[in-house]
Amino acid sequence: MDLRFFAELVGTMILVLLGDGVVANVILKKTKGVNGGIISITAGWAFAVTIPVFMFGNISGAHFNPAVTLALASIGKFPWEDVPMYLIAQFIGAFIGASLVLISYYDHFKLTEDKSIKLGVFCTAPEVRNLKSNFITEFIGTFILMFAILGIGAYPLAEGISPIAVGIVVWGIGLSLGGPTGYAINPARDLGPRLAHFILPVPNKGDSDWQYAPIPVIAPICGAIVSAFIYNMIF
Amino acid sequence: MDLRFFAELVGTMILVLLGDGVVANVILKKTKGVNGGIISITAGWAFAVTIPVFMFGNISGAHFNPAVTLALASIGKFPWEDVPMYLIAQFIGAFIGASLVLISYYDHFKLTEDKSIKLGVFCTAPEVRNLKSNFITEFIGTFILMFAILGIGAYPLAEGISPIAVGIVVWGIGLSLGGPTGYAINPARDLGPRLAHFILPVPNKGDSDWQYAPIPVIAPICGAIVSAFIYNMIF
Amino acid sequence: MDLRFFAELVGTMILVLLGDGVVANVILKKTKGVNGGIISITAGWAFAVTIPVFMFGNISGAHFNPAVTLALASIGKFPWEDVPMYLIAQFIGAFIGASLVLISYYDHFKLTEDKSIKLGVFCTAPEVRNLKSNFITEFIGTFILMFAILGIGAYPLAEGISPIAVGIVVWGIGLSLGGPTGYAINPARDLGPRLAHFILPVPNKGDSDWQYAPIPVIAPICGAIVSAFIYNMIF
Amino acid sequence: MDLRFFAELVGTMILVLLGDGVVANVILKKTKGVNGGIISITAGWAFAVTIPVFMFGNISGAHFNPAVTLALASIGKFPWEDVPMYLIAQFIGAFIGASLVLISYYDHFKLTEDKSIKLGVFCTAPEVRNLKSNFITEFIGTFILMFAILGIGAYPLAEGISPIAVGIVVWGIGLSLGGPTGYAINPARDLGPRLAHFILPVPNKGDSDWQYAPIPVIAPICGAIVSAFIYNMIF
Repeated sequence: MDLRFFAELVGTMILVLLGDGVVANVILKKTKGVNGGIISITAGWAFAVTIPVFMFGNISGAHFNPAVTLALASIGKFPWEDVPMYLIAQFIGAFIGASLVLISYYDHFKLTEDKSIKLGVFCTAPEVRNLKSNFITEFIGTFILMFAILGIGAYPLAEGISPIAVGIVVWGIGLSLGGPTGYAINPARDLGPRLAHFILPVPNKGDSDWQYAPIPVIAPICGAIVSAFIYNMIF
Repeated sequence: MDLRFFAELVGTMILVLLGDGVVANVILKKTKGVNGGIISITAGWAFAVTIPVFMFGNISGAHFNPAVTLALASIGKFPWEDVPMYLIAQFIGAFIGASLVLISYYDHFKLTEDKSIKLGVFCTAPEVRNLKSNFITEFIGTFILMFAILGIGAYPLAEGISPIAVGIVVWGIGLSLGGPTGYAINPARDLGPRLAHFILPVPNKGDSDWQYAPIPVIAPICGAIVSAFIYNMIF
Repeated sequence: MDLRFFAELVGTMILVLLGDGVVANVILKKTKGVNGGIISITAGWAFAVTIPVFMFGNISGAHFNPAVTLALASIGKFPWEDVPMYLIAQFIGAFIGASLVLISYYDHFKLTEDKSIKLGVFCTAPEVRNLKSNFITEFIGTFILMFAILGIGAYPLAEGISPIAVGIVVWGIGLSLGGPTGYAINPARDLGPRLAHFILPVPNKGDSDWQYAPIPVIAPICGAIVSAFIYNMIF
Repeated sequence: MDLRFFAELVGTMILVLLGDGVVANVILKKTKGVNGGIISITAGWAFAVTIPVFMFGNISGAHFNPAVTLALASIGKFPWEDVPMYLIAQFIGAFIGASLVLISYYDHFKLTEDKSIKLGVFCTAPEVRNLKSNFITEFIGTFILMFAILGIGAYPLAEGISPIAVGIVVWGIGLSLGGPTGYAINPARDLGPRLAHFILPVPNKGDSDWQYAPIPVIAPICGAIVSAFIYNMIF
């Protein structure tokens, strides 16, 4: 099997384990991180990206995000024939990552009564439900993510700076554009854990909010592809 | 068209989108970042600088700030004939960036009643209105910004360190000197979004506080130019 | 005497002094850091790792953690005959580090009445006591720590990036997986200070919770060894 | 005049301007940073160190701290004949830095009634006044600072990493050992601003607490010198 498959799978698994993990720590009941606030959540997601990029950047390019994979393929920077392998690895990794969060915080899921908080550990939900607005916000967030990835990748960096740079991009997007929808900006990060919430025995769970599920899948893909085309056109 | 024009325009756009974005996330109603505090706001502005410097530093030098452009020209480190192009790009970029914040957080602008909070997402306002004091504070802040930029630029750094260093400078100035006026330290960052607030259909908006507008334009320009002259004289 | 002995001893001492120190600052009474929250505690532990890695990485490899030493030996990346020297240095260093925290915060230990808070400065305790769950959480945390260390070590980095990378790993694990048990992920970090609490004259102390002591020793060792084997198998 | 004199003077000025500035922002009345907490204060001080080290490290070695200068001289790593020049520059710089904080936050000093808070912007004060304990805490903090500086300096780092490393050391010491006394760990940082508080027209000020003044001068000097000797003995 292609080593890149494992790199994308394990990398996305760590991304979601640490990313959903920090949400669990901050919003579930009786944890050490109760009420850690937005700085903790966005820092946790930033490190959740930086760590596997350090580990697997040299193997697979460290996409961990179907929107990035599809956008790179759209502008000819990634071979289309490898896209299915990457996407499958990313979704499997995200599913496993979310399962490990459930295992790590199982007692705290039991102690938390609010069902929407439990779902909120797994996947995103908008603060104001307005599918059109939510689509636009996710589109802009992923547009900036993709633009920054391409811009940062265009110039030489000392070895080990680029995982830090990508983490800063994700931290920045989380702080600045995450307010309305919780910045999915990655279909695997949202759909994989949502499926995990749907299938796995989360204690006393509610529904998995499938009505909202298409937004954090479609908007990031559109945003990343449009971003890559515009970046390519100008620079 | 000169590629540097697009770099300054898009760079300043990202600067203001992410910078005003984090303010929106922290002070508007019903966002994920409600009450994120000064550490979130200053971190968001720091990353808002670091990210486009990573992307465009090698193209345009990554000014994104008319005070920096004018100060560099004043000491002969930037050609005067390119100054208008840079300034135009910076103000257009800042205007577009602020517009994208309005779009991203539109529903939250609707939910927020306080008109001064809505204006506060776009541009700075002093906590104690005293134009002389406010001028001095903005002058000192931009003096330090320019001094640090020149000092950091004087020595070789491994590739990719300088965007991080500049981000740390902005983070530091925000935490330490941002208390009284909210550290505009950049005429484009303040005037561009103020104009956006004035022109665009911000839901149920108040006035754009044009009385204060000159301070964050004039003080940063004076501070940066004086700083560059003194730096050049000593080092 | 082998210089690596002193490097591991002093490095682990600094790790525990700064790590337990930030907990003291946040949870003891009448300190400057009262109620600093999870972001301060996890940042403090991250820097507590990064600083001695900067200092001693080139001398001893900067393990500071028996689980890491044993896992590296298990996969043939560290000589078994040096394991006892490393482990002894790590436990002595951890004990001294905890003693220095007691000395630095002595008056604040006196002012704090809650005995479990005093113990909490020294060693970890789970929020929900369920030894099986606690074992699993510590196992997963150390699994990720070891996997990340091996992944980051597999590729060249500019000099000075790897201490920062390891700090980010520890910060990330703290934010994301520290919620249930307080992330010991290191037998020396937990057992050394627990012994210090047991032996030293902590003002008006309670018991040292020896019932829980085996979990943060055994789970990290198992997690790190399994992690190293799986990493070696795939990559 | 020696260029190193200006580097130490301006560097220490920026250190104290940004360091005391963040304290002003967090503890004075009606600022943007009100209640920013320990994470903001320690971050601000860390950047207050990192920024001038970036600027002046290549000129003067970036001591900005008489305890560091004296300790380096004690172990033969800095010429004794340059010590007076460095110390004078550091104290002048610290005094000017504190004056600039007073100017920047003048209206907020007027609005703040509590006189000990006003003094707290300038210099350190212990939470529990116990001169022996306070001496020990400052001694340990500066011991670790000096040990870390020597350890980090002993190995090659990519250009631009060492200002970041030193900032992390100061951030870590602040979070972990700053709880009891507010981590002066630098005689110039404490005495210079205390003198500024004593001499300058701080609105409605109280006394300058000269009784405590010797501790943050003597303890850091002792801690740094002992640290340098022990480091030299072992490594």
